[in-house]
Amino acid sequence: MLEAMGQRAKLAARLLARTTTAQRNAAVEAMAEELSLDRESILSANAADMRLGREAGLTPALLDRLLLNEQRLEAIANDVRTVAVLPDPVGEVFEQGVLPNGLRIEKRRVPLGVVGVIYEARPNVTADVAALCIKAGSAVILRGGKEITRSAAALVQALRRALERVDLPADALQLIDNPDRELVRGLLTLDRYVDMIIPRGGSGLHAFCRQTATIPVITGGIGVCHAYVDHTAPLDQVVPIIVNAKVQRPSVCNSLETLLIERSAAAKLLPRLGAALQEHKVELRCDPESLAILREAGNSEWHLVAAQPDDFGQEFSALILAVRVVDGLDQALEHIDQYGTDHSETILSQDPMAIERFLNEVDSAVVYANSSTRFTDGSQLGLGAEIAISTQKLHARGPMALRELTSYKWIVRGAGHVRD
Amino acid sequence: MLEAMGQRAKLAARLLARTTTAQRNAAVEAMAEELSLDRESILSANAADMRLGREAGLTPALLDRLLLNEQRLEAIANDVRTVAVLPDPVGEVFEQGVLPNGLRIEKRRVPLGVVGVIYEARPNVTADVAALCIKAGSAVILRGGKEITRSAAALVQALRRALERVDLPADALQLIDNPDRELVRGLLTLDRYVDMIIPRGGSGLHAFCRQTATIPVITGGIGVCHAYVDHTAPLDQVVPIIVNAKVQRPSVCNSLETLLIERSAAAKLLPRLGAALQEHKVELRCDPESLAILREAGNSEWHLVAAQPDDFGQEFSALILAVRVVDGLDQALEHIDQYGTDHSETILSQDPMAIERFLNEVDSAVVYANSSTRFTDGSQLGLGAEIAISTQKLHARGPMALRELTSYKWIVRGAGHVRD
Repeated sequence: MLEAMGQRAKLAARLLARTTTAQRNAAVEAMAEELSLDRESILSANAADMRLGREAGLTPALLDRLLLNEQRLEAIANDVRTVAVLPDPVGEVFEQGVLPNGLRIEKRRVPLGVVGVIYEARPNVTADVAALCIKAGSAVILRGGKEITRSAAALVQALRRALERVDLPADALQLIDNPDRELVRGLLTLDRYVDMIIPRGGSGLHAFCRQTATIPVITGGIGVCHAYVDHTAPLDQVVPIIVNAKVQRPSVCNSLETLLIERSAAAKLLPRLGAALQEHKVELRCDPESLAILREAGNSEWHLVAAQPDDFGQEFSALILAVRVVDGLDQALEHIDQYGTDHSETILSQDPMAIERFLNEVDSAVVYANSSTRFTDGSQLGLGAEIAISTQKLHARGPMALRELTSYKWIVRGAGHVRD
Repeated sequence: MLEAMGQRAKLAARLLARTTTAQRNAAVEAMAEELSLDRESILSANAADMRLGREAGLTPALLDRLLLNEQRLEAIANDVRTVAVLPDPVGEVFEQGVLPNGLRIEKRRVPLGVVGVIYEARPNVTADVAALCIKAGSAVILRGGKEITRSAAALVQALRRALERVDLPADALQLIDNPDRELVRGLLTLDRYVDMIIPRGGSGLHAFCRQTATIPVITGGIGVCHAYVDHTAPLDQVVPIIVNAKVQRPSVCNSLETLLIERSAAAKLLPRLGAALQEHKVELRCDPESLAILREAGNSEWHLVAAQPDDFGQEFSALILAVRVVDGLDQALEHIDQYGTDHSETILSQDPMAIERFLNEVDSAVVYANSSTRFTDGSQLGLGAEIAISTQKLHARGPMALRELTSYKWIVRGAGHVRD
């Protein structure tokens, strides 16, 4: 079954690679329309997923993630529409020249081919990923979490109809709708047809994909983000940035997990920071030094806990923050090196030397100075949308959008050229 | 042992990432010098490899590949020197801007980190790869073929001494000198420390790496290159290009393996092509149509053979060429799609429409018009050197050199920025 899907996807990809920007934009527009038109069957499929999810005892948080309603579906359709108007990277010539021997050379962006995306119980990912891949000229094989089997199938049916409507091959978008986990393994080794695997989920999924795949995998998405605050950082910036990075949306990968504070700034800054975070009910897991300062500054309502060793390097994805006092920049860099996940880190400082060292030496996808880490996001950084956040170093790093869904080819034009 | 090597490599990579261009250039210069200074011990180690190789009954071709002498060692040192003067990609800012909210963003090239290179019995690869990786600011772990165990160890010893001489960490260059094959498997799964694997060898090695590695692998190097000749191609270009592509160096991956000729051009061109290739003793493995034309044109000294099915898609790496008559461009594209390895293909034609379709639709790393395929090479295409030729679509495609040995990071500067 996978073999046949792969063949169909590759054939569809070849056709897609020959389309114009206008054709692919029309396809994405049609996808948005079909999502609205097909509202009833999508919502009724989702209602079935929700019913089964409740019976299976899924948590309220997971059920909420599963849920589609008219408003959410319209938001998904609007996100798809946004993709249609983004600039098209396909065909862009990004280097060109003439060699001394007269050969004319260009490097031109071309579609990747076939992308495999493995995701969890988020129905919206189905449409987001489909729109980005089709826009970038690639076919996509989707495998969603078993909790959204019916919703994903209904969404894909609508999206495939849109492709047919504009005379593009429906097989450019295929869904593995059988929940058998062996099929994930099969997709990960379908290297004759699939050019790239994008896992969208937790660290377990990423590790499984890395270990199993014979196809390049984009790993990422796990964010243990750090902030380092030194004694030159102004209080009126520190408090809003740390609160924003921790509190605004604690469940996402670019939220803050660990605060490192320079010893000489701790006595001044920590009490104010503690008070501000306390207002948002943030639990602070503190090393002995910061715990002593915060215990003295706070009251019994503050959520103060002595940090355990594994609190550093942990992705809490909740209103919990690990806190540690460090000697200075060097110790902060060492800590980040040891515990970070190469995602996003920020320095709050007015010392230009410290800022430049931090930006140079922290080996993360996105490094910030005097900013919240919450901007590590394709839309926030000006890409318009994102298909994943890569924390590996090959191909693309940080937010990945349309351009990162392309490859390139060398085009060489001669006039009878032979090599000496 | 590998764990410790990985740790040391990562530490060395972190130090390398903080060096200046001048420091890394000095290191590469010193590497070239030490190769010359250490001539005696390198050549005597190589003599031992050669003796064991002869005892083991290696073929003369393989023994020649193994052999180092003063002249070859000087050539290797010169190649290393060439790397020192190439432009440094590290630190290059290739995109920058200010977002509407005032965040200042740049994307800056940074070293990859640690590269693992697995190669076969070519001593020169040891020095080439070391020079490119160090220049690009990355540490490298080498694993050479067992036939060059002693040569590689002697080369690495000299190269490490060069690093120490310029106060860079010798562990930026390490060699797995134990021939146990389990260590290759170990290197391929050393994902805590190694950022990229480059196999340099045959298709078996590439497949093994893809299947075993939990680290991104650059696959490539296998070249079943095609030329398509249509009826508009001028004879005075066709003959030299086809002869050059097949004959100049048949053992390399960018040499021609299959000639596809448009039916309406076959009767005119094939006899002349056959005669020219015959002068170079090229064996032609022909489909029935081309065989009939060539048999009629040639004489008993021509090496004409009826093609077997597996002659198409085969990398002969020898003076053998598969020949097929096709209806026209569409059939040529189908043939390449079915049998090609996405490496290098060329069209010989004066028809602009056919040329553009070929360049657009052939999904290979390098596509040519009216040129030999032999230019798919880092030096030939203006990169100055190459570490590999990628035929996959992620990260880099075609010749890979210094820039393709880098990653990038996002640098974001704010002034108290928080996300709404």
